[in-house]
Amino acid sequence: MCSICRRILDGLNDSTSIKSTALKLMTKIINDSFLKTLRREATPYTPVWMMRQAGRYLPEYRASRKTAGSFLELCKNKNFATEVALQPLDRYPYLDAAILFSDILTVPDAMGLGLHFVEGEGPKFKYPLQDEEAIFKLDIPDVEESLKYVFDAVKSIKDALNGRVPLIGFSGSPWTLATYMIEGQGGTDFMRIKKMMYSRPDLMNHILKINAETVSRYLACQIEAGADVVMLFDTWGGILSHHEYEHYSLNYMKVIISNLNILGFEKIPKIIFTKGGGQWIAKQAKIGADGIGLDWQTNLNKARNEVNDQITLQGNLDPSILLSEPKVIEAAVKKVLDDYGVGEGHIFNLGHGITQFTPVENVSVMLETIRKYSKQFH
Amino acid sequence: MCSICRRILDGLNDSTSIKSTALKLMTKIINDSFLKTLRREATPYTPVWMMRQAGRYLPEYRASRKTAGSFLELCKNKNFATEVALQPLDRYPYLDAAILFSDILTVPDAMGLGLHFVEGEGPKFKYPLQDEEAIFKLDIPDVEESLKYVFDAVKSIKDALNGRVPLIGFSGSPWTLATYMIEGQGGTDFMRIKKMMYSRPDLMNHILKINAETVSRYLACQIEAGADVVMLFDTWGGILSHHEYEHYSLNYMKVIISNLNILGFEKIPKIIFTKGGGQWIAKQAKIGADGIGLDWQTNLNKARNEVNDQITLQGNLDPSILLSEPKVIEAAVKKVLDDYGVGEGHIFNLGHGITQFTPVENVSVMLETIRKYSKQFH
Repeated sequence: MCSICRRILDGLNDSTSIKSTALKLMTKIINDSFLKTLRREATPYTPVWMMRQAGRYLPEYRASRKTAGSFLELCKNKNFATEVALQPLDRYPYLDAAILFSDILTVPDAMGLGLHFVEGEGPKFKYPLQDEEAIFKLDIPDVEESLKYVFDAVKSIKDALNGRVPLIGFSGSPWTLATYMIEGQGGTDFMRIKKMMYSRPDLMNHILKINAETVSRYLACQIEAGADVVMLFDTWGGILSHHEYEHYSLNYMKVIISNLNILGFEKIPKIIFTKGGGQWIAKQAKIGADGIGLDWQTNLNKARNEVNDQITLQGNLDPSILLSEPKVIEAAVKKVLDDYGVGEGHIFNLGHGITQFTPVENVSVMLETIRKYSKQFH
Repeated sequence: MCSICRRILDGLNDSTSIKSTALKLMTKIINDSFLKTLRREATPYTPVWMMRQAGRYLPEYRASRKTAGSFLELCKNKNFATEVALQPLDRYPYLDAAILFSDILTVPDAMGLGLHFVEGEGPKFKYPLQDEEAIFKLDIPDVEESLKYVFDAVKSIKDALNGRVPLIGFSGSPWTLATYMIEGQGGTDFMRIKKMMYSRPDLMNHILKINAETVSRYLACQIEAGADVVMLFDTWGGILSHHEYEHYSLNYMKVIISNLNILGFEKIPKIIFTKGGGQWIAKQAKIGADGIGLDWQTNLNKARNEVNDQITLQGNLDPSILLSEPKVIEAAVKKVLDDYGVGEGHIFNLGHGITQFTPVENVSVMLETIRKYSKQFH
């Protein structure tokens, strides 16, 4: 574990020096519009970044990947991670944040479940949690050691950014990690995990507690390594019923936010994003997050009312719009900005990751429209 | 086309005799609690049916299938369709409706797109709409002729039911049919259809208009053949943005409801169900439907408020609960009934089709709990 967390857990709760360390990390940012919006401070325009902005739609990314190995090897190679994390910023001057190049499933991999990627089929685990014995063997890994490659990448990207924009660290949410850990892969009907949740809530909560504790440490170490903001991707929270979402996903994200605050990272903004969770925004607003991510099914104006204009909202253009024409993109971007309306507290983003088939010039159209059109709202 | 529709379209708008025909079809039902609830009349308990209630979780269905051919051949065989449509009613005395045994994709098949089912991969089309030429060739088929096997199945099931419970006819919604027609199969990321929708709304609307007109005729013929209620399955409306849902899915369902009313079927209850559409219930309430289906992500109480307690709600147990234990099922069923609360206007259902791995005895637990526990609310 990183030095700060170790000190906390060793009982040396010197919160003054911790806070000053955390603050120090935040002082060097040149373009801080993204951070300001998360603090609900005034900015001259609406800041923007894109989920999967370092990815396959960029020809320079595809070129870099040709010379490298598997996706997981790439995540573990800090030079590659740094190179590709900066590619979208070098191409697009109007991006206001960088994000760590990594995968949401590094945590269960560090727990020994054997993550690998099958071409065209997505992530798979060699040792999914398929029986009680495996579940009770599950334990919090030595995060500092087993996920060192991630913190090395954070440091390296942070250095390379040299304060241009803030760096976002991230993890999968405890529930979302658990879906892969139990189902063994993506693209399933989630019947394994749901059966466990309904029949054996004791086992389900055991896994989620371990995930929440591990993710807390994981994000603490990312912050210590230089992440200015952290985000929890709750990609599969939306498959839960309205009764179960709060208990099995939201509450464990709350645990992580509380843990990070206890560790002295109150000032580090935290964003949560439950895909398909637009009906539960009022609940999401109550767990201490600074930002809530939204997909394109949700009306930003309605969401703004639901959070009483107190929490920053991030989203929510349908990424498939970027497959169309400049005029359509311009109109759609303006609609999103109009939906949010006048005032601070909106970070522009897509409602999900950018697709690999997106023409690079369409991203420019989006970014230029945001920069120009949003000024009237600030 | 069926005789009633033909008369309408021939300008012989004898609405009195049409209404009496439609009403005559509705007079013979013995257990009419499902129909009463759709009319918001008092019933002694909450009625229930299950999406895919005639399906693979039933050993008698699996046995029947062994002796028959492919899924599509089965749909086209009225004796088989009748046999399996009645199986769940014979097993479970507490089911309050039967549903036509068919597939949502019969309509594009009748349009000549060549529907077939690949084992383990779901439905595929041999001739998906991949270019402008194919789209402009698309036309309203001779529904009465090309989908005769469906109307024969409706008549046969209706006869076999002999008034025990009402029979539900159905179709895919225009938007949902279009997703398969353009993507060519299920399980995609919907990039083809979204690209068309955003780049070529003219082509998209052309397809949807043809679909809406065809589905109107299709459902009219199902009603004429004996369907007491019709339902539109909008399985993929939930992938649309809140801006596009109304235009590209909801409005075309509205066209169908209006067409059916013009044809004299005002008294035939109409249910719409947009999976993943829980954020748009207030909009759904305005298109003239008598019932709105809900998935498990939506709180029934909140939904009831959103429709001002004026429209019947159908749902919304997570079908995966049926994989667990009787006690869990009992508690979850009670929660759904508690969510809706006192009063008429609730039809119990699952939030999606029952899964093939459901133990048959768990369905009994659900049905018995509904019947006993719901009496206090009526």
